[in-house]
Amino acid sequence: MKQRIVLALGGNALQQHGEATAEAQKKIAAKVGEAIANLANNYEIVIAHGNGPQVGNIMIHEETAATAAAPAMPLETAVAMSQGQIGYWLTQAIYNAFAKQGKQAKIATVISQVVVSRDDPAFKHPTKPIGQFYSEKEAKSLARKNHWTVKEDAGRGWRRVVASPRPIDIVEKHTILELIQDGIIVIAAGGGGIPVIRTRILRRLKGIDAVIDKDYAAEKLAESVKANIFVSVTAVPNVYINYGLPDQEPLTTISAADILRLQKYGYFKAGSMLPKVQAAATFAKKGGTGIITDITHLKDALKGKAGTIITP
Amino acid sequence: MKQRIVLALGGNALQQHGEATAEAQKKIAAKVGEAIANLANNYEIVIAHGNGPQVGNIMIHEETAATAAAPAMPLETAVAMSQGQIGYWLTQAIYNAFAKQGKQAKIATVISQVVVSRDDPAFKHPTKPIGQFYSEKEAKSLARKNHWTVKEDAGRGWRRVVASPRPIDIVEKHTILELIQDGIIVIAAGGGGIPVIRTRILRRLKGIDAVIDKDYAAEKLAESVKANIFVSVTAVPNVYINYGLPDQEPLTTISAADILRLQKYGYFKAGSMLPKVQAAATFAKKGGTGIITDITHLKDALKGKAGTIITP
Repeated sequence: MKQRIVLALGGNALQQHGEATAEAQKKIAAKVGEAIANLANNYEIVIAHGNGPQVGNIMIHEETAATAAAPAMPLETAVAMSQGQIGYWLTQAIYNAFAKQGKQAKIATVISQVVVSRDDPAFKHPTKPIGQFYSEKEAKSLARKNHWTVKEDAGRGWRRVVASPRPIDIVEKHTILELIQDGIIVIAAGGGGIPVIRTRILRRLKGIDAVIDKDYAAEKLAESVKANIFVSVTAVPNVYINYGLPDQEPLTTISAADILRLQKYGYFKAGSMLPKVQAAATFAKKGGTGIITDITHLKDALKGKAGTIITP
Repeated sequence: MKQRIVLALGGNALQQHGEATAEAQKKIAAKVGEAIANLANNYEIVIAHGNGPQVGNIMIHEETAATAAAPAMPLETAVAMSQGQIGYWLTQAIYNAFAKQGKQAKIATVISQVVVSRDDPAFKHPTKPIGQFYSEKEAKSLARKNHWTVKEDAGRGWRRVVASPRPIDIVEKHTILELIQDGIIVIAAGGGGIPVIRTRILRRLKGIDAVIDKDYAAEKLAESVKANIFVSVTAVPNVYINYGLPDQEPLTTISAADILRLQKYGYFKAGSMLPKVQAAATFAKKGGTGIITDITHLKDALKGKAGTIITP
């Protein structure tokens, strides 16, 4: 029996040195493809990727160039567009890495909706900046017109901010599970998933403009498909205590309870290591193995020889 | 045993009266969702949709608002983005139509690559206009810079034109077949698929800027998954002879050989009914049933009571 892994791959990871062309991002996707092809003999693999810089650029293009004939797509639809975009790059990269080994890959990028609660407190306090910069006057006018929340962003101008609610359920989880059981590599819950709420009557799905953290969504997906291992793939080989300071110390194997204690002491930064640590520790607390490492150390980390490994 | 259908759904069908907002397109998607939910008891369903107006608007936004930090995505990646966008709308619409009947849908929108030949004569004679209008000077300068072909478009300005090569193979066909066999409704080969070529050495996949006709791609998909029925869903209930003239005559049941003879006589317009007739007749010639009708008459057409039905 193969072990089942869910990998949460950073959207920033595809845009190294700020290079945002399709060509540059495909080159980095190729490295991810090689890593996946090297694991596929021994593991069932699901990839949940981020989309921060990609959906940001889509929204900038949509908003800047909107006309009556070609109106801007809302954020929820832009997340779907970024799933197509990044899913395509990763799918092709994995195919090509398999082809290099003389094998044919079976892959599905599944467009994925993730349910959030309209009562999530995040909707009262939107924090995630998205799209282009505006002058204060433009921003406030757009806020009135479109029911946006806008905020001044670190002296660089005004931007729209959206909520980052917690994922409750992966709509496509049954479909994704069938794919895994068919031996197919699945790319799903891209960008944390397209945020949807369920209407009170009829339980219909309805898109809502928000951004779901990809680590929390990937962890929820890992639980839903009964994965054995959850890996948050990031830019560094380990989680560090006092990262960047002279006394920085990599964490190797640690229990969920211990790393959550360190988190409580404020060792991990929000918007950086905090969601990864929380997601991996949540997964480990439920009996799985949580790993945080970079793509280079992924294979060794799965053998217990690298990365930060969080045990139940 | 359920009959297996592949539906080729027009991208224009989602933008009635030229309304291109996400909201307007979701409303039309809801009607498609209802039609699918009403068929799902009796048929295995695969949907291959067009993306003409949608990918056009994406390219206009990408090109108009491109900056060094947020560069324009190439057409092949924009097709992937449109697959995410339209696939999401259709997925959600089908879920909601099932929810109304108290049922849970199992659906997968699969990002799909479609192989074309770099030797396809279409690459020597690009014909499909894409993206925004330019002045002659701008257009010719962009053509030199980006190796584009540009053409004057009916007095409205200059535009880039791309090739429309024939589909050779659906890369994700095995994955799509497994999904169908698992009882999952599949949305695939959106916009005719992301055009890719296979490199001569190593058989790697590589995206190429082109537009594949969605009817030809959907027919290729129907063959690949051994469908029993191929339906090109269009804006009119039937194919007509002398459409719009006083003596217009709807075609009801007709053999592949007979409708291809009418086509040879020039009865069907390129860019309109021609590719639908060719795709449906090609499918029928191989032993299946080809249907051309609108979404309203779809259910009756499947019972042989409406639409143009092309027999082997």
